[in-house]
Amino acid sequence: RINADRLWDSLMEMAKIGPGIAGGNNRQTLTDEDAEGRALFQSWCEEAGLTMGVDEMGTMFAMRPGTDPDALPVYVGSHLDTQPTGGKYDGVLGVLAGLEIIRTLNDLDIKTKHPIVVTNWTNEEGTRFAPAMLASGVFAGVLGQDWAYDRVDAKGKRFGDELERIGWKGEEKVGARKMHAFFELHIEQGPILEAEGKDVGVVTHGQGLRWIECTVTGKGQHTGSTPMYMRRNAGRGLARVTELVHEIALQYQPNAVGAIGQIDVYPNSRNIIPEKVVFTVDFRSHILETLEAMVQELNETAPGICADIGVNFKSEVVGFFDPPAFDETLVGRVRDAAERLGYSHMDLISGAGHDACWVNRVYPTTMVMCPCVDGLSHNEAEEISKDWARAGADVLMHAVVETAEI
Amino acid sequence: RINADRLWDSLMEMAKIGPGIAGGNNRQTLTDEDAEGRALFQSWCEEAGLTMGVDEMGTMFAMRPGTDPDALPVYVGSHLDTQPTGGKYDGVLGVLAGLEIIRTLNDLDIKTKHPIVVTNWTNEEGTRFAPAMLASGVFAGVLGQDWAYDRVDAKGKRFGDELERIGWKGEEKVGARKMHAFFELHIEQGPILEAEGKDVGVVTHGQGLRWIECTVTGKGQHTGSTPMYMRRNAGRGLARVTELVHEIALQYQPNAVGAIGQIDVYPNSRNIIPEKVVFTVDFRSHILETLEAMVQELNETAPGICADIGVNFKSEVVGFFDPPAFDETLVGRVRDAAERLGYSHMDLISGAGHDACWVNRVYPTTMVMCPCVDGLSHNEAEEISKDWARAGADVLMHAVVETAEI
Ligand SMILES: NC(=O)NCCC(=O)O
Ligand SMILES: NC(=O)NCCC(=O)O
Repeated sequence: RINADRLWDSLMEMAKIGPGIAGGNNRQTLTDEDAEGRALFQSWCEEAGLTMGVDEMGTMFAMRPGTDPDALPVYVGSHLDTQPTGGKYDGVLGVLAGLEIIRTLNDLDIKTKHPIVVTNWTNEEGTRFAPAMLASGVFAGVLGQDWAYDRVDAKGKRFGDELERIGWKGEEKVGARKMHAFFELHIEQGPILEAEGKDVGVVTHGQGLRWIECTVTGKGQHTGSTPMYMRRNAGRGLARVTELVHEIALQYQPNAVGAIGQIDVYPNSRNIIPEKVVFTVDFRSHILETLEAMVQELNETAPGICADIGVNFKSEVVGFFDPPAFDETLVGRVRDAAERLGYSHMDLISGAGHDACWVNRVYPTTMVMCPCVDGLSHNEAEEISKDWARAGADVLMHAVVETAEI
Repeated sequence: RINADRLWDSLMEMAKIGPGIAGGNNRQTLTDEDAEGRALFQSWCEEAGLTMGVDEMGTMFAMRPGTDPDALPVYVGSHLDTQPTGGKYDGVLGVLAGLEIIRTLNDLDIKTKHPIVVTNWTNEEGTRFAPAMLASGVFAGVLGQDWAYDRVDAKGKRFGDELERIGWKGEEKVGARKMHAFFELHIEQGPILEAEGKDVGVVTHGQGLRWIECTVTGKGQHTGSTPMYMRRNAGRGLARVTELVHEIALQYQPNAVGAIGQIDVYPNSRNIIPEKVVFTVDFRSHILETLEAMVQELNETAPGICADIGVNFKSEVVGFFDPPAFDETLVGRVRDAAERLGYSHMDLISGAGHDACWVNRVYPTTMVMCPCVDGLSHNEAEEISKDWARAGADVLMHAVVETAEI
């Protein structure tokens, strides 16, 4: 069993870096706060006797050697970066639970055949630089490394430049490492486990995602002196597409969700009719056909409802992953571990995207989830209990150690 | 008759300061570019033998003395500040036409009984610091000076501090000057004069305005893992209010207009359902009852259509002026001047707000308008012809000189 107090103390210690404004965190990827968080994690890894490797995407790999020099490592981790108004657990729990496994194995003097590598993936959140799960996407060979370096934030700063600036661009080729397996513990970020009264979610599948950046173009005109009949108001295009996205998602619920989270209006002046609105639609489903149908429906319907009011609609996919099905053997080990340890559990589909979704395309992968209060995440008020963290980390350790073999 | 080439050259010279990105201007109030524009205007005033006074709101008053020491001055002017993506004529034409009148009177060695004062009002546009027509509002005693100083821009900078920073906070008490009359030439910013083939608009009335800052509050939640039924999406509140504003305006057209020009989404992350959206509704009508009915309808309907989707609606008036009726004597002088000079003309209601609307509350005031291409304004592509500028400035000069008495 892991030491829940120690895990909790580390969570609270990390949460001091990049504090938010409402009790949560703003430790966005490749900021000074991210660098500070990485340094703290590194110091903990050194104390635990791990050897750090860093790849060219800045992903951190902290290794505890195994007893068999030929055995591939078992990887366990998640991400330390947060949303601009993020919680203390989204991502962080998965990294620090990985570290807690190492600390527990050290305490008990347990050696494993396979090395165990605690991992912190760069830019999981995707807020500052779209898409999300950027480094794991490059690692899995789905996204190009040069393309990733060229992603820019809202201020026009390049991912590649910011990675160098904070001093975490490593030497190691991305994807050079081979994995025996990858495990990720994460908070559910949804309401199901809490509602069902379960301690542990055994994640069998995940939702796929499409991020569709839409640009509605009208004409920037004076709000006072332009007659109603002459207006080409891009803001009305946004309004219509907002409702369209909601209706498309409702049509497929509970197997799909959809919303617009990010909206930028140009020139954004009180007395100018919006000339242009740029916004990103987020569609998700665990059924690939449903996901594709939603995108198709958006692209078929939106241009027309925009043209009806004299504005132009254009779209471009800026983030995507198909619904993953996790490795059945590893899923079974998670389920057995929960059962053996006496934690209540249920099978679950991950609503959010995770680095595990990309890694799953190249190596056997699975996830463990723990509940969070009111299903709330991507919000500074995100909360979990120490007991939930304990249950998730215990199950994670048992599944990892069984896979790493004693 | 004024010298249209000289007027045009000055317009083009001023347009070099704070160039936009598409042929127009970005010379927002109290920026370094504004300071540069002011300095150029001041140097022209000095060349023309005028004496500059600056009040505590930064408004510039350049005086040509009259022959009667007891006669109150006739004021003529507009504003040199622009929208972030503004044109070369909105405001600037009115100030430089005032200067052109002085230059022409100097050329012809004509003296007037009343002094003539060319005026550049601070912060007419209201983009950087809401509301619009800020300095003329304080001058007219409608807005408080301390309140005006405390307006902040999107970066949190105070109007009062920025005014000091650019070095244009004058010594003169605001509103201390008494006016015999105020005249403002402005481009129409709408399509009517061009469509009707008229050179000159005789402005009899103006639309009133209400700027209503609305805040829709929902819950910032994960776009992937939050089930549709749990969502409280503030972006959908924006969508519903956008359409409501449009419907309200349509109901009263052609006597009213309405739109939302400025929208800020929080936290504005692709995978967070909008927690909060802040936006400003712009309603206008030349009929006070209509204006008030529109605001009432918004405040009666919006809370309900937002509550229906679980989000909260709050609103606050952040800009306002009632529909002005300009001084009939001065209006008659403008109409007579157009007639006498042989320019085609028509009576017009100003669609936009102008400093003249505030000054009209305290001194006899009127406006002259000239056409603009496609009615386009608050857009870098804003355009007028030299002939239109000539017609407007000629009519302005005749009305001003008649009022200032030779
Ligand atoms: N877990 C998580 O919030 N990841 C960010 C990517 C996503 O939006 O699902
Ligand atoms: N003329 C002009 O565009 N003034 C700004 C105030 C308004 O929005 O009407």
